[in-house]
Amino acid sequence: MDKKYVYLFSEGNGDMKPLLGGKGANLAEMTNLGMPVPQGFTITTEACTKYWDDGERILPEICDEIFGYITALEGLTGKKFGDTDNPLLVSVRSGARASMPGMMDTILNLGLNEEVTESIARRSGNPRWAWDCFRRFIQMYSDVVCEVSKKAFESKIDDMKRLRGVRDDTELSSDDLRELAAQFMDEFKASQNTDFPVDARSQLLGAIKAVFKSWNNERAIVYRRENNIPGSWGTAVNVQEMVFGNMGDDSGTGVAFTRDPATGERKLFGEFLMNAQGEDVVAGIRTPQSIDRLAKIMPDVYAQFVSISDKLERHYRNMQDMEFTIEKGKLYMLQTRDGKRTPNAALKVAVDLYNEKMRTRDEALTLIDANSFDAVLHPVFEEDALKAAVPVARGLNASPGAGCGAVCFTAEDAVERSAREPVLLVRLETSPEDLAGMYAAQGILTARGGASSHAAVVARGAGICCVSGCGDLIIDEADRSLNIAGHIVREGEYMSINGTTGNVYLGKIPTADPDLTGDFSTVMRWADEVRRLKVRANADTSRDAAKALELGAEGIGLTRTEHMFFADDRIPAIREMIVSNSAEQRRAALDKLLPLQRGDFADIYRVMLDRPVTIRLLDPPLHEFLPHTDKDIRALAADMSPLYDGLRGTLTGKGLRVSDEVWQNLLFEDLKSTVRGLHETNPMMGHRGCRLPVTYPEIAQMQTRAIIEAAIDVREETGADIAPEIMIPLVCEAKELRFVKDIVTGTADAIIAERGVGLRYHVGTMIEIPRAALLADEIAIQAEFFSFGTNDLTQMTFGFSRDDAVKFLPAYYSNNIFESDPFQRLDRSGVGKLVKMAAELGKSARPDIKLGICGEHGGDPSSIEFCHGAGLDYVSCSPYRVPTARLAAAQAAIRGGSGSGK
Amino acid sequence: MDKKYVYLFSEGNGDMKPLLGGKGANLAEMTNLGMPVPQGFTITTEACTKYWDDGERILPEICDEIFGYITALEGLTGKKFGDTDNPLLVSVRSGARASMPGMMDTILNLGLNEEVTESIARRSGNPRWAWDCFRRFIQMYSDVVCEVSKKAFESKIDDMKRLRGVRDDTELSSDDLRELAAQFMDEFKASQNTDFPVDARSQLLGAIKAVFKSWNNERAIVYRRENNIPGSWGTAVNVQEMVFGNMGDDSGTGVAFTRDPATGERKLFGEFLMNAQGEDVVAGIRTPQSIDRLAKIMPDVYAQFVSISDKLERHYRNMQDMEFTIEKGKLYMLQTRDGKRTPNAALKVAVDLYNEKMRTRDEALTLIDANSFDAVLHPVFEEDALKAAVPVARGLNASPGAGCGAVCFTAEDAVERSAREPVLLVRLETSPEDLAGMYAAQGILTARGGASSHAAVVARGAGICCVSGCGDLIIDEADRSLNIAGHIVREGEYMSINGTTGNVYLGKIPTADPDLTGDFSTVMRWADEVRRLKVRANADTSRDAAKALELGAEGIGLTRTEHMFFADDRIPAIREMIVSNSAEQRRAALDKLLPLQRGDFADIYRVMLDRPVTIRLLDPPLHEFLPHTDKDIRALAADMSPLYDGLRGTLTGKGLRVSDEVWQNLLFEDLKSTVRGLHETNPMMGHRGCRLPVTYPEIAQMQTRAIIEAAIDVREETGADIAPEIMIPLVCEAKELRFVKDIVTGTADAIIAERGVGLRYHVGTMIEIPRAALLADEIAIQAEFFSFGTNDLTQMTFGFSRDDAVKFLPAYYSNNIFESDPFQRLDRSGVGKLVKMAAELGKSARPDIKLGICGEHGGDPSSIEFCHGAGLDYVSCSPYRVPTARLAAAQAAIRGGSGSGK
Repeated sequence: MDKKYVYLFSEGNGDMKPLLGGKGANLAEMTNLGMPVPQGFTITTEACTKYWDDGERILPEICDEIFGYITALEGLTGKKFGDTDNPLLVSVRSGARASMPGMMDTILNLGLNEEVTESIARRSGNPRWAWDCFRRFIQMYSDVVCEVSKKAFESKIDDMKRLRGVRDDTELSSDDLRELAAQFMDEFKASQNTDFPVDARSQLLGAIKAVFKSWNNERAIVYRRENNIPGSWGTAVNVQEMVFGNMGDDSGTGVAFTRDPATGERKLFGEFLMNAQGEDVVAGIRTPQSIDRLAKIMPDVYAQFVSISDKLERHYRNMQDMEFTIEKGKLYMLQTRDGKRTPNAALKVAVDLYNEKMRTRDEALTLIDANSFDAVLHPVFEEDALKAAVPVARGLNASPGAGCGAVCFTAEDAVERSAREPVLLVRLETSPEDLAGMYAAQGILTARGGASSHAAVVARGAGICCVSGCGDLIIDEADRSLNIAGHIVREGEYMSINGTTGNVYLGKIPTADPDLTGDFSTVMRWADEVRRLKVRANADTSRDAAKALELGAEGIGLTRTEHMFFADDRIPAIREMIVSNSAEQRRAALDKLLPLQRGDFADIYRVMLDRPVTIRLLDPPLHEFLPHTDKDIRALAADMSPLYDGLRGTLTGKGLRVSDEVWQNLLFEDLKSTVRGLHETNPMMGHRGCRLPVTYPEIAQMQTRAIIEAAIDVREETGADIAPEIMIPLVCEAKELRFVKDIVTGTADAIIAERGVGLRYHVGTMIEIPRAALLADEIAIQAEFFSFGTNDLTQMTFGFSRDDAVKFLPAYYSNNIFESDPFQRLDRSGVGKLVKMAAELGKSARPDIKLGICGEHGGDPSSIEFCHGAGLDYVSCSPYRVPTARLAAAQAAIRGGSGSGK
Repeated sequence: MDKKYVYLFSEGNGDMKPLLGGKGANLAEMTNLGMPVPQGFTITTEACTKYWDDGERILPEICDEIFGYITALEGLTGKKFGDTDNPLLVSVRSGARASMPGMMDTILNLGLNEEVTESIARRSGNPRWAWDCFRRFIQMYSDVVCEVSKKAFESKIDDMKRLRGVRDDTELSSDDLRELAAQFMDEFKASQNTDFPVDARSQLLGAIKAVFKSWNNERAIVYRRENNIPGSWGTAVNVQEMVFGNMGDDSGTGVAFTRDPATGERKLFGEFLMNAQGEDVVAGIRTPQSIDRLAKIMPDVYAQFVSISDKLERHYRNMQDMEFTIEKGKLYMLQTRDGKRTPNAALKVAVDLYNEKMRTRDEALTLIDANSFDAVLHPVFEEDALKAAVPVARGLNASPGAGCGAVCFTAEDAVERSAREPVLLVRLETSPEDLAGMYAAQGILTARGGASSHAAVVARGAGICCVSGCGDLIIDEADRSLNIAGHIVREGEYMSINGTTGNVYLGKIPTADPDLTGDFSTVMRWADEVRRLKVRANADTSRDAAKALELGAEGIGLTRTEHMFFADDRIPAIREMIVSNSAEQRRAALDKLLPLQRGDFADIYRVMLDRPVTIRLLDPPLHEFLPHTDKDIRALAADMSPLYDGLRGTLTGKGLRVSDEVWQNLLFEDLKSTVRGLHETNPMMGHRGCRLPVTYPEIAQMQTRAIIEAAIDVREETGADIAPEIMIPLVCEAKELRFVKDIVTGTADAIIAERGVGLRYHVGTMIEIPRAALLADEIAIQAEFFSFGTNDLTQMTFGFSRDDAVKFLPAYYSNNIFESDPFQRLDRSGVGKLVKMAAELGKSARPDIKLGICGEHGGDPSSIEFCHGAGLDYVSCSPYRVPTARLAAAQAAIRGGSGSGK
């Protein structure tokens, strides 16, 4: 039997999301539940995949199948597609398996042309409605199918409003709209060199192709990358009989949530516009009314809607996000889906659904999006500072949290500046083109749009605070300045916004940590009950360690010893160590570093006490520490000149006069040439990691001494059973590890014997070089633990460096070669294969080997799921990601993630 | 039963080389054959390995076993170890599984002390001999066991000779030698703070330990690396009753080969010294006599030796290298082993042994050392130039071939300068410390030493030409100059030497290719009959291609298209391409490159005709081509200024006056910032390979056009069935390969359709990124062939770049972490694992996939053996390595190399 590419709503059901997309499956489900849904059919996601495989063509047999379903729909509705007398008008909407709000395209009122519009204008007695529909259709079709710029159309509407002296679209007359439709068709012809299509079937095919095509538009690709949605899924297309919210004052359209998506509170939350079509609500052009108002305007319709929304929430056992239209007093449901919510709302909804007995503990845990979860840890304004601050304006509290940053007016600027400082993106309104800039910002402030506007939806999803629809805000993009209630703020100056209240402030307001009790602690407790993976943190200081502990870390998975060296008072000693000409000079410099390192480690032990602390030996290329300017080199040469006093003495002893200036110059020149000699062509693949102690064993000796002595000291001081884990980085060969391990154990054992104590310690290695993963069985013989350094492992496995890949990765995303950033989400098929291989080989040689991960992937939910499946013992991530990791580890355990999928 | 660590010679045999070492096994075999061998025993290689495993200790039970065998030897000889009256004196010599001449240590006359020497001086009536033995023993023991510098002893001998007014050691009297022995013991005490050991057993244990220890001395490690000998093998130690060549004029010692090791000619070849001990012959201190002379001096001994050497050659079915000593007219055999020979001699010996029916064809092939085989291709002087040249001096023709280079006086200088230009190493005599410098030189010239001197042996083994013992050469190392027959030559000036004749010339003499007929062509014919692997060459020009064809290449495995761009007349166009601000500008620049590339490819096709030619798309980081100095940037800006005439016109059109200077400056600044923007942190892991066409498809389009158009043109011109293989580099993902392949096939198919011809072409990829190897099944679906780029694959797998690794690899060698350079010899356990995985995955997805290798490993015999075992179809190497590869491929087939060993 041939494959079926089209399903009537009545043929599908809610479990068919992979095939019908979320929207299609839910429309089918609502149809089955007997709810008032305009009928239609869904073209499957497989048809989309096939469209791409067939070279962006819809094969004739699939066209035939579609037209067959148009005939069926004609039968259901008693209308005729393309007919002048009783035309069937349809909407064409995308609908992927995972909800991608606003990412892809929608066309309403399809089936109209001038003649049909004339006819329905006459027959409906509502010519304003008819011409409004037609002008909307031209606008959407031109934009979506033919990529005619929206601006041209919008400026024509603005011109017409100015001409007529009106403010709102609704105030334009039917003649105005008819005139606009004519102008729009001219614009289309001017831009496309062809007339606007009059044939309904070719309109339909054009629209379907455009939806398929929109699956791979730039913003959809960005969204998928941010939300871990595979490009192979494709989108379905829903073709549905039109119902009209713009037929007059007894018509309208709206969206609503069964609970408040910002707080999770259990009450109907939404907004609507009378005499409007769907896009008017989300586009933020007119400011909509709260859903409560509907109870006053149309009590019956409101009651029916409340009943339906209750039923839907109970049916799906989750907070629902619904779209509806009221046509001449009759309610139609256009969509329902699980509602996007803020991370805090997600917490509350999960706990409430559990308490309401709708969900089990494990189900409730999986309802929380681990990817945006760390937003619950986002700073709020410091209370005292906030009290002192006076808001200059107020907008809608569109996405909660506190945001403070340098003002940027375009997404590009925001992306660029965010590399240097926190930014606040300020826009008239946002559109999907702004996505990258929105993700880069600490907060988003818009002049227009409501709680369902693009800015609000995206910000909530990403856990970024947002104030939208701030009416007192006037933006002068060309001048790179804004005027907010009379205050001028220039690009780069700081502002602060409170997404929880909607308040807007000038300047910086200090932030404070959020409250981590209540629902947060409930969910964390659940997560800890469920998860198998331990969660540690990467922490280089006792401050980081304390924060990690507070957020639930069970140990330190990575302390980067080099980070301690960058401080101004320490860098001279490490520089001396690097440029030393002999082991003796090197030891002298290391002697200066020893007490500093010992102190740092002791501070960390004092925080962590009995908990495991993994300390990595010096890792980065030495030249990272070097002075690069002549001035710095000269300063270092002066610092080091006492080391050369003997030599100078030899010269002067032989009667040579050596002036201070000449001598300093000589040392400077020598040092400069040493620095030059340390230059590396590919520092990432250079003299670093365990290659340093292979060439300079003194470094590992000093670091081991600091680690062991500090442990003994703090054990004596606190009585805690401290057992440091010493980690050797960048190993590629078992004999190399053994060589460095021998230095470490030789030093450690001597100190322990000398101090006459029985300190335990462990020596392990990072697996971050492909060869180490390939030969992990040999390496495990020398290592008590493996920690996967997936940052470097990703670089080496892909053969590109993170620093350099920024130049070409955008082309990889836009050409659909990569779907996500392998540095953010662990590449399961390549890097993951190595990790699994290494885990298996390591266990084969040492069954009790401890396995962890300390790359940045350790805080990424998808990667954590992989780690669970690969049998690792723990993940380690930055302190603020610890709660996310606890949750993600629990979800992985619940889902039984094997980590083997893609 | 306990493991046996010691074997009497009579307990072993010639097959026990892994356990007894080469020397021990052959001493046992000669004992079994009834030859006159001084008796003794061998301490096994396992004892050496155990010594290292036990922390550089010989365990008491092994000491007991050794002393038990001393007792046995006392029984065999009737002498007593450490006895004053009838002392057993022994030699202690290393003997590894593979011959490592001069690499490790030997101690003669062990068992002597002052009292014993007094006694044997008296009892033998030959006090001169006795004291000569003792002073030699102190010298050797001090050097080998206690690392007392040799120089102190040598200068004492020189002082004594000066004091006595004599030239030769042999002219010193017994009193002189006794006095020297006393001075030597004082020197020992001064250096060691302890008396020279008098107890024979402690002498013996010290000597054995020193031999074990010498297994890991620096020069042994270097030698093993050069000769692919695993560090895990260890060395055996042979303890043998002394016989004395220094007992007077009826005594002597010598070495001889059964065939001429320089030419392979079948005649006894060797030299000897009367009244001398073994080290005198090889040390080159006295110049020895030819073995023929022995027939005159001691005809009976000579006849016996000839008979024994014939018997040994027939027994071992190979050319033998023997050591003998004559003690008071009686011949003793001290060693026999397969003789090292020049590559040309190896050819002749192999063919002769086959013709003499001693060896089959396959056996004969395996007798030739593939590692040094390409020396037979080494240049010889151009005949006309040689006729015109007048030698200024003559030395011994120690290793054949022509060598010409800048004079260096130390090994370090030679290594350093060889990076820039060919060098000639000029030394008084060489020692194992000079190894690295010798390997780096085009030729070696020494003032002292015979055909068996260190310089000669090493040079022959490595296929480097050498003239030794050049008496007219006076070296002033301090002045960095030499005087040769009155001509002064300073460091860095050129000289030429002919290792085949021994002639030495001033200045450069042009070289010409060697004769490749006769034995060479016989062996190559045999190899081609036997091998399964095809052999291709890496060639970037038609000239290289022609040379490759001449040397037997069956195709081109790699044409690097970027190499064509570095020429002065081409680099401006590629620079323009790189700095282009738009696809349009880029295309204009590429249009200039197209005819150049097409012409290059056409030239190569004309040479190769029907044979396969694999052309790789542009690979290196673009910035490699960029100008770096302001001057070059300014020149490029000027070249490109016409592209900006339009823009300038816009400015002037608006009434702005723009002077030439200002305009050029503006373009210069712009270009400079473009160049800066192209800088990469890790160029090896940057924007290169297939990442270039992903971002700039125009590049691949142009190159494909050039490849296809040239193929069509040359096919029409010659009628040859040309089917280019287009190779896409640096792939890490199947979708990436598909993206670039689509560009290639789209371009190629359009051209082929347009020209109306039926050209075949193939598209494949390099496997040089670990991820590509891990996912080779997915990649194979897109690739008709894989070519393993093992240079990059080695870099990524080990995580270090070749350029940067030079800083730390020496420490890896000296600490025995790496035994060979992974860029020269394919790392079987790590990189090899990836190669095998990729080969298997590739075949699983595409059974007829063609597999090759084009990294430098493609010319390395050990790596070729691996490729054979891994089931590759071909290797590709530089043209001059093609014969080596043909031979190595044949040897791999004969040995049935599975490639799975280490």
